[in-house]
Amino acid sequence: MAQALRLAERGQFTAHPNPMVGCVLVRAGEVVGEGWHRVAGEAHAEINALNAAGKNARGATAYVTLEPCSHHGKTPPCVDALVEAGVAEVVVGIEDPNPRVNGKGLTALADAGIRARVGLMQGDVAKLLSGFISRVTRGKPFVRLKMASSLDGCIAMASGESQWITGAEARADVQRLRARSGAVMTGIGTVLADDPSFTVRDASLDIGDKQPIRVVLDNDLRMPLSAEMLALPGKTLVYCINDTKQKALKEAGAEVVRVEQNEGQVDAALVISDLARREVNDVLVEAGPALAGYLVSNGLVDELVIYQSPHIMGSETMGMFRTPLWTELSDRKTLDISDIRRVGADTRITARVMD
Amino acid sequence: MAQALRLAERGQFTAHPNPMVGCVLVRAGEVVGEGWHRVAGEAHAEINALNAAGKNARGATAYVTLEPCSHHGKTPPCVDALVEAGVAEVVVGIEDPNPRVNGKGLTALADAGIRARVGLMQGDVAKLLSGFISRVTRGKPFVRLKMASSLDGCIAMASGESQWITGAEARADVQRLRARSGAVMTGIGTVLADDPSFTVRDASLDIGDKQPIRVVLDNDLRMPLSAEMLALPGKTLVYCINDTKQKALKEAGAEVVRVEQNEGQVDAALVISDLARREVNDVLVEAGPALAGYLVSNGLVDELVIYQSPHIMGSETMGMFRTPLWTELSDRKTLDISDIRRVGADTRITARVMD
Repeated sequence: MAQALRLAERGQFTAHPNPMVGCVLVRAGEVVGEGWHRVAGEAHAEINALNAAGKNARGATAYVTLEPCSHHGKTPPCVDALVEAGVAEVVVGIEDPNPRVNGKGLTALADAGIRARVGLMQGDVAKLLSGFISRVTRGKPFVRLKMASSLDGCIAMASGESQWITGAEARADVQRLRARSGAVMTGIGTVLADDPSFTVRDASLDIGDKQPIRVVLDNDLRMPLSAEMLALPGKTLVYCINDTKQKALKEAGAEVVRVEQNEGQVDAALVISDLARREVNDVLVEAGPALAGYLVSNGLVDELVIYQSPHIMGSETMGMFRTPLWTELSDRKTLDISDIRRVGADTRITARVMD
Repeated sequence: MAQALRLAERGQFTAHPNPMVGCVLVRAGEVVGEGWHRVAGEAHAEINALNAAGKNARGATAYVTLEPCSHHGKTPPCVDALVEAGVAEVVVGIEDPNPRVNGKGLTALADAGIRARVGLMQGDVAKLLSGFISRVTRGKPFVRLKMASSLDGCIAMASGESQWITGAEARADVQRLRARSGAVMTGIGTVLADDPSFTVRDASLDIGDKQPIRVVLDNDLRMPLSAEMLALPGKTLVYCINDTKQKALKEAGAEVVRVEQNEGQVDAALVISDLARREVNDVLVEAGPALAGYLVSNGLVDELVIYQSPHIMGSETMGMFRTPLWTELSDRKTLDISDIRRVGADTRITARVMD
């Protein structure tokens, strides 16, 4: 199953909106076939493994990270293929959270006389598929907020000066986060200040044509028609409250969506739901303190990824989160830290935001 | 030598101002005696190890963390005792940085026909003795600045509300830092806000009667006569620029020292030098953002120890360092992080402050 997980991970930049899946066929203690799912429309992991195994699949045990499908989607059901190949046993990481499958695959296997077990390394599989699971069970993507700060929590000088807070390794790591995300979200303030492209530029990351959607929260459509991201391949989605300027922006290449306001701003919860409808599993937020504070205050961040540089920047600076309504210590948010590691000279801290 | 280091560490709360030293005697592959230095005036590590070994010391190899002394201090020279016991070889971690010894012990051993080597695990020994080495070679103690903050670099709400930023394990760890320090330094602002005692309260830490000296930087002697620390066992040193109120404070139990000003404040560099004259090896600073920022800005901090709690506190807060003169990114200080570890739910980061 550990090997099936590693295979699944190979689809991390391309499989979405489908789940990453890996499959290993073992017969008499030997691996006879391996497969993983690369991209929607192409063969599922099980089929690739069965094809690799050929006749050796007969009597084998299949280790699959995710419950095999029993329905006709873009490809025929994997359960049928496993039955037909004569697989003796199927060991599954987690049940498919997709309501169209959810246990039906396991039932179909049992009905065909194949032993089926579920739950092996389920924690690791669920972590790998957090975006997919979030979308199909909660109707919203997994929202990951990335920030770069000094050790004393500063993201820029008060003047705005902020280039290269973190090192090259941390920035390369962010490229990987982007490449794994269906969308990168920011606020109009960041667009006006930095004119970011938010594309995956690291050629060693094989994303195919899957540049993440650029998502900008822009109450009154202040987005410049000359913004870098509008000229790049892939889609730019601009969410606003007031769409009177939408025509020019559409002509410049953006898709403009009007949503309701919350606290006088684009309601980010509605944006996040809309991204689930657009089949985005994972959203990476790369934003300034205003949007970061708003999202954390409103319980809209699932995971924080902080790159902390080994510097003290002091008091004449900008902090990480603008939270004007938090006046008492009890207003603070508690984090559940899942990982701390060095990335070059910086420290990467990964944490869930608790309620 | 690793065992000698562990023995040396047993003196961490009591040996200062003397260095912590450990000694292991090995003959024919077997440990025949161990010793460590507990407190100034009592026997040195070598003597304790020789006493434990008795006749078995003859022909043994002595592993000693620090070069044995060859001069008469409060106790007779260890070199003489090693020679007399018939030790065959002496392996030393580092030469004694104390100019009264510094190589003389090794020379004396060689003159007596004993093989003497130096440098085994010298990095670890030097780290253990950083305070002692700093005092005898630089004329100032090793200055360790401890801070507790949230993950976003906040030490309190803007209102000052700040109790229990970090957890019980982190606070217990701070007790150990205090117990290892000859002095705990703070600013008058912290005294007025929190009325701290700065004593070692953890009874499991065997400090004997060695409560660290309390050191308060207090320009105009605003220290209340009712301050908690004045009533406690041990010494309270108050450094001021203007000593007109010193009489009452002395009567309340403080020692008052007038020093020159720097940037309108008590010159902390002079205070630190004065503490070296008082035989303080290690100073622990537990202070607010004003003194922390002043010390870091003026290059007076050797090591930062930050306890980072898993919380986001937001923008209506106080930052870690007040640095009014740092207006550009290039003013920031770079840290060399030597250790990151979890302490309960918090993360402890230990770092050197680079120039």
